Amino acid sequence: MSQSPATPLLDRVSDPSALRRMSDAELRQVAGELRAETIDAVSQTGGHLGAGLGVVELTVALHAVFDTPRDRLIWDVSHQCYPHKIVTGRRDRMRTLRQKDGLSGFTKRSESPFDPFGAAHSSTSISAALGFAVARDLGAPADPPLGDAIAVIGDGAMSAGMAYEAMNNAGHLKKRLFVVLNDNEMSIAPPTGAMSAYLSRLYAGAPFQEFKAAAKGAVSLLPEPFQEGARRAKELFKSVTVGGTMFEELGFSYVGPIDGHDLDQLLPVLRTVKARADGPVLIHVITKKGKGYAPAETAADKGHGVARFDVVTGVQKKAPSNAPSYTKVFAESLIQEAERDPLITAVTAAMPDGTGLDLVGKRFPGRVFDVGIAEQHAVTFAAGQAAGGLKPFCAIYSTFLQRGYDQVVHDVAIQRLPVRFAIDRAGLVGADGATHAGAFDVAFMANLPGMVVMAAADEAELRHMVATAAAHDDGPIAFRYPRGEGTGVDMPERGIPLEIGKGRIIQEGKRVALLSFGARLSEVVAASEALSAKGITPTIADARFAKPLDRDLCLRLAAEHEAVITIEEGAVGGFGSHVAQLYAEEGVFDHGLKFRSMVLPDIFIDQASPRDMWSVAALNAEDIEAKVLSVLDVAQIGKRA
Amino acid sequence: MSQSPATPLLDRVSDPSALRRMSDAELRQVAGELRAETIDAVSQTGGHLGAGLGVVELTVALHAVFDTPRDRLIWDVSHQCYPHKIVTGRRDRMRTLRQKDGLSGFTKRSESPFDPFGAAHSSTSISAALGFAVARDLGAPADPPLGDAIAVIGDGAMSAGMAYEAMNNAGHLKKRLFVVLNDNEMSIAPPTGAMSAYLSRLYAGAPFQEFKAAAKGAVSLLPEPFQEGARRAKELFKSVTVGGTMFEELGFSYVGPIDGHDLDQLLPVLRTVKARADGPVLIHVITKKGKGYAPAETAADKGHGVARFDVVTGVQKKAPSNAPSYTKVFAESLIQEAERDPLITAVTAAMPDGTGLDLVGKRFPGRVFDVGIAEQHAVTFAAGQAAGGLKPFCAIYSTFLQRGYDQVVHDVAIQRLPVRFAIDRAGLVGADGATHAGAFDVAFMANLPGMVVMAAADEAELRHMVATAAAHDDGPIAFRYPRGEGTGVDMPERGIPLEIGKGRIIQEGKRVALLSFGARLSEVVAASEALSAKGITPTIADARFAKPLDRDLCLRLAAEHEAVITIEEGAVGGFGSHVAQLYAEEGVFDHGLKFRSMVLPDIFIDQASPRDMWSVAALNAEDIEAKVLSVLDVAQIGKRA
Repeated sequence: MSQSPATPLLDRVSDPSALRRMSDAELRQVAGELRAETIDAVSQTGGHLGAGLGVVELTVALHAVFDTPRDRLIWDVSHQCYPHKIVTGRRDRMRTLRQKDGLSGFTKRSESPFDPFGAAHSSTSISAALGFAVARDLGAPADPPLGDAIAVIGDGAMSAGMAYEAMNNAGHLKKRLFVVLNDNEMSIAPPTGAMSAYLSRLYAGAPFQEFKAAAKGAVSLLPEPFQEGARRAKELFKSVTVGGTMFEELGFSYVGPIDGHDLDQLLPVLRTVKARADGPVLIHVITKKGKGYAPAETAADKGHGVARFDVVTGVQKKAPSNAPSYTKVFAESLIQEAERDPLITAVTAAMPDGTGLDLVGKRFPGRVFDVGIAEQHAVTFAAGQAAGGLKPFCAIYSTFLQRGYDQVVHDVAIQRLPVRFAIDRAGLVGADGATHAGAFDVAFMANLPGMVVMAAADEAELRHMVATAAAHDDGPIAFRYPRGEGTGVDMPERGIPLEIGKGRIIQEGKRVALLSFGARLSEVVAASEALSAKGITPTIADARFAKPLDRDLCLRLAAEHEAVITIEEGAVGGFGSHVAQLYAEEGVFDHGLKFRSMVLPDIFIDQASPRDMWSVAALNAEDIEAKVLSVLDVAQIGKRA
Repeated sequence: MSQSPATPLLDRVSDPSALRRMSDAELRQVAGELRAETIDAVSQTGGHLGAGLGVVELTVALHAVFDTPRDRLIWDVSHQCYPHKIVTGRRDRMRTLRQKDGLSGFTKRSESPFDPFGAAHSSTSISAALGFAVARDLGAPADPPLGDAIAVIGDGAMSAGMAYEAMNNAGHLKKRLFVVLNDNEMSIAPPTGAMSAYLSRLYAGAPFQEFKAAAKGAVSLLPEPFQEGARRAKELFKSVTVGGTMFEELGFSYVGPIDGHDLDQLLPVLRTVKARADGPVLIHVITKKGKGYAPAETAADKGHGVARFDVVTGVQKKAPSNAPSYTKVFAESLIQEAERDPLITAVTAAMPDGTGLDLVGKRFPGRVFDVGIAEQHAVTFAAGQAAGGLKPFCAIYSTFLQRGYDQVVHDVAIQRLPVRFAIDRAGLVGADGATHAGAFDVAFMANLPGMVVMAAADEAELRHMVATAAAHDDGPIAFRYPRGEGTGVDMPERGIPLEIGKGRIIQEGKRVALLSFGARLSEVVAASEALSAKGITPTIADARFAKPLDRDLCLRLAAEHEAVITIEEGAVGGFGSHVAQLYAEEGVFDHGLKFRSMVLPDIFIDQASPRDMWSVAALNAEDIEAKVLSVLDVAQIGKRA
């Protein structure tokens, strides 16, 4: 571990007001210190590194020019917020980032008044900023009073329709509003989409339309000789304002592109727009993800998400893994299927690495589509492919599938199109916390008529479910699987399609049946082993399907046991609710059944290790054991029931 | 009723191939006949009139030029599809439109091979068309084989982020693809947003950039002297191609704007682009909603949705209503609250009339925001307002709230922001069918931590719930209410906030408790009256809240009755599932309870009268009565159980 960097100026920044008292030269120095401090902090915790390093100067400039927290500064996605946290009074807690009871890896309203609107999903910042601007203009009371609203959004986030909707509305309402487009040609993956190409052309040095017309919007912002920065700003506008028509057509004044690592450009431009804007302004800033730290700058993902690392060498300290990740098993299984069936395609919304589809795309370049951060389009694009006779796999994390829910209902389910949904990160995810938990997918998918919903109990099951989805051509099908590593079970050579709607018995037992849906099965087995020592041998079943339910299995478990307990890593309304509905309709409850449904609790669970989160959720082996003992009324002391 | 119009040429059009054998002069005549036939058909059924009349010539031209159904023609939203249905073999069934067992009011895959991708929600067509284009280029098998993909999308639908996501992706993939932008400056409500203003400028006759640069994309499509239309097309391009930069920046060739009622423009342009396009092309067509039928042209909504009407006078035959609509009660109640509280605002996504917010906006013009078809932005915009200290009501139909689900979770619920969701059209909606049913909102809202979820049993309850939502400032709150008229109950002068999480007893009875959530309460009461005649007096309760549940009420009903039956107009996973979860956790089932949960069935229900749809769903009074008799094991013959 290297020594902490020397940060004499940064040490004076207990909050951003200190930045406002500094000279431009001091701000340049403090930016350097802030970069060093960011690297040092993340080296100890891991987390999002590249994004923060790209906005060090921008962070300093925004806080130096705007009157935060009165002016509401909203970081889109907010994985670039670490430097912001350091200068807004949270420096002493940076080494607790993304840990239990520590700082969130994202902005969070409950954490600081300098975080007026939290984020973690992409492309929400302009909508939120417009809301603040409207509230200000309607005289809403707020503490502190409402000043300016500033959204900082990346070029990747601009591919999402939501950002366009917000720009479209903001241009119409004409409220004073600042959108800083942080253009690093890199969201998480390399950029995709026509908008990205458009942005590149804006600073490619090849003016593609007349300067005069384009500069109009920017020129209107120029002050009469106003302050030290004005002359400099004028020069900048003259030299760089060569584009931006698209934003101007949407009603924004466009300023840029400017070098986001040059405070001599950032400060005068921000001062100028702050002094003169009377409507929405887009400030186009070019930055480099990972800027100033060679190991990040040269990494393929620009140091997007890193484990703890050595500051000098940049070598990350990842724990050795014992089993392949579910994501990798999904990708390898899909490659197997795609080798046999040329009609199989795959769609990702800007997460080729995260979903494993990068591996599939390397093998079958023409059959994998990265549509950008655009889940709505991703789902309906897949539906169109299915209608055209392809067999698309739409791989989207549980939490992001929420973005395409209407499309799942309206374009896929109602039309009974055979889109295969691969739902990664189902359940609690650890350091990314509540915003990334996959809690609701079973509930919102399993009540759609005609939808098949599976959950993988382990990585071998996942392989079979990929095969099942490939073979299922009579309507949509979804399968969920968790973040992280599998359980280490033997892997089958290839996947064998499962019978739709049939679960399996893992262990025959007595008195109590544990009916598991998904990857908590290993905890169920562990609970059973603990119970055996107490003379209780539960029956264990893996439902495999939340829809269609294995009715025979569910009813037999009820008939043959005193108690049935369902276990799933999802919110109420999902698997357990479907079982309860079956039991109710079949009159199973009429004469008594000790039925319990273990689901995620009715709280958003903050970041921690997965095991700690499962403990909060009461879904670990000891919780299952305690539930059995309680239901069977076996004496136990000091245990949760 | 007027006589059916004479349609000698249209009578020869049993399918679109007939159009392809006609001369341009004959096509002009057939368009006139098609307009008359459309008016006559809708006069007898009611439905969407204005949109179809606006695309009569476009429909003729597209089918005459393209080789449907081999070429996939996708109508966005598809309420403009009536002329399309007439020329694609469904003319003889047009008088069954939107009726039980009749033609759908929208395109529908199961109805015709000429409907390759159904719709009803907006802005999905480009995504779907791109899916077809990809399937074609990958050689997917389809019947008939895949030809061109053509999306026809309105200017209103272009405000949705999803359309932008699809354009962005299509421009990137560079597949041959046609997007016809049907620009009538009118979606359902007058247009809003900067994009709309941009489109207006495109044909305002004021060139805002050099012709040469803009025309480049279009000119590249021009044929060498190609056919009769080429000369004409060249002229058109010269005279009208003055804009389109934004679309060109997104990677599309832009052609237009052209007069969408002039077949002498439409035919040559479509023939030209069909012959020459090698990538995505946007064809900008100007039309007039309601074109050619004076009563529609002059109506404020351009005849968007009409009841049956007299063709000569245009007078609609609406059934007299006995009670105010829920929508109107919502609007009037919100006006009452907004009069007392200047911080109350409201947001609609392009449905000011449908949600009643037009009335609120007339009274408080600066406090109601129509953001266009942009549900994602609508929700987060409201969240930003709430974070800024306002009290926003976000009024979105149940089915469209699916479009903003992630924003409800990520921006509202996780941050516990006091956004009020007014969920209109909750439950089955009649003639609009399955695509507009509000079936899933209780399930997808009630499992969000911190969310309050109410349903109004009648219009007086709705008034109280508006007051409850206005008063509730500690997190988000939602209330759902159905389409159509209230029950005619006495209306309270003003709403009184309800106690959060408390239901009410309607009637004390014995043996069985009917626990209703929402507007099926009147059917529950009717069922109870029928049961009384058989000596059974049920207890009736109105839960009011699905979340937080009235635990005391639910447990008391279970303790004091042999059977508890929940009734709601929503899919499994909602209210009944939450009650079941409570009962399970409290051990209520351990010793037996006849518990049943009446929910929407696991099918998408086609259009019919609401009463017929409720009958299919088994949620009418007789169904509730039968369920009680069955559960109590009372002999009954010939009844469903």
